[in-house]
Amino acid sequence: MNSPKPLDRIRIVLSHPSHPGNIGAAARAMKTMGLSRLVLVNPKCFPDGEAKARAAAAADVLDNALVCASLSEALAGTSLALAVTARRRDLATAIRWPRQAAAELVAGTAHGDVALVFGHETSGLSNEEVALCHAPVSIPANPACSSLNLGAAVQVLCYELRLAAEDPGDAPSGALEPARFEEVEGFIAHLERAMVKSGFLDPEKPKRLMSRLRRLFARTRLEKEEVAILRGILSALETGPYRAPGEKVESRE
Amino acid sequence: MNSPKPLDRIRIVLSHPSHPGNIGAAARAMKTMGLSRLVLVNPKCFPDGEAKARAAAAADVLDNALVCASLSEALAGTSLALAVTARRRDLATAIRWPRQAAAELVAGTAHGDVALVFGHETSGLSNEEVALCHAPVSIPANPACSSLNLGAAVQVLCYELRLAAEDPGDAPSGALEPARFEEVEGFIAHLERAMVKSGFLDPEKPKRLMSRLRRLFARTRLEKEEVAILRGILSALETGPYRAPGEKVESRE
Repeated sequence: MNSPKPLDRIRIVLSHPSHPGNIGAAARAMKTMGLSRLVLVNPKCFPDGEAKARAAAAADVLDNALVCASLSEALAGTSLALAVTARRRDLATAIRWPRQAAAELVAGTAHGDVALVFGHETSGLSNEEVALCHAPVSIPANPACSSLNLGAAVQVLCYELRLAAEDPGDAPSGALEPARFEEVEGFIAHLERAMVKSGFLDPEKPKRLMSRLRRLFARTRLEKEEVAILRGILSALETGPYRAPGEKVESRE
Repeated sequence: MNSPKPLDRIRIVLSHPSHPGNIGAAARAMKTMGLSRLVLVNPKCFPDGEAKARAAAAADVLDNALVCASLSEALAGTSLALAVTARRRDLATAIRWPRQAAAELVAGTAHGDVALVFGHETSGLSNEEVALCHAPVSIPANPACSSLNLGAAVQVLCYELRLAAEDPGDAPSGALEPARFEEVEGFIAHLERAMVKSGFLDPEKPKRLMSRLRRLFARTRLEKEEVAILRGILSALETGPYRAPGEKVESRE
């Protein structure tokens, strides 16, 4: 069997990169560590000569880069996505350090594609983008000067990914097939519709409640079958129980 | 006691950097990881606007950078220097990986200044420069594309230094005061003179033999007292034993 190597299943996603030089630096950082799958969400300038110059021997990584219109599109088909962020968030799931994140991502490649997502050079990832990922990753840094250059941040994480791929440690045991991004998103959308329909969620201000729920399901790392079960439950609840006319509703234990 | 923190005792030495942008990137990489002591050996352009731009919030690291005319000058006062190199060398001492090197450097700060030396962007460090250091460090990389950008390499090593400083592990026990760079160099020069004088070393082609000896003493990490002892022995051998006229030379056990 010629199954793909872990590093071939890891997408490096740059969301809204504004400096083409940083895209080139990221490509070079990736290639030196043996990664090749660059995905760009709405890059400001791409392709670009400055990107090519900074990529040096990694021009092929740029040539094969995928350009997407949204982070959702970039994450389609993945079963694990981690968001690199320096900011502390309101609804922080347990933050991973790079070493831990790398081990998790490499282990995740056993089930298919995974992604590591980097945000805009100045503003980082939006809360909505972070919410599309399973957990945040932070690079330990000087609190007085914590903002790494984008290419440098990609280099540190790809370095840890290479180390993790060389020594993958113990595979998580007993894990079933994890759900893919679009399956989980389909469920979340379904849940939101059902909550609005039921009057539980005010469609005018869904933010806070939805992000709490997203966090919960991100943390659990839903499996494929679980998503099917949850959606089945939702559908059942939306339709309501079948009752014969005049039938009395009894509570089930 | 307000003793300096480990990271304050680590010099990041860039030998012959040719792109000012990389000097700026290195300064930023250092500051984000809490390091501040940048030393430049014969930089091509410095100070420079491009360096300042790439340094971003680390302009102070550039402002305080020390510019030296030689690597020997840059290493004066250090008791441990490691050389970052991608090339395999003839006389390779055991190569350190970044994690190992970082632990060694942080442990070394207990005795004063230590240094991590990076070479020219394309040609790296010369064999003579590597020979002035105790051991080489290599960043694990894709064999097909192993050359990291200089700023990115500084970022990876400074990241490991920060981790090592936060969790220094076990201090090496029983280590006495290590010799400083100039003490070891003084001994090596003394040894070379003595070897030439004795006819053991052909002064026309000293290279190979001297580099073997350098490697040996680099590996042992000479202590201050040991240097004194070795030089004492050299001096004694150079002078020759005092013999009373007619005295017989006996071998000592």
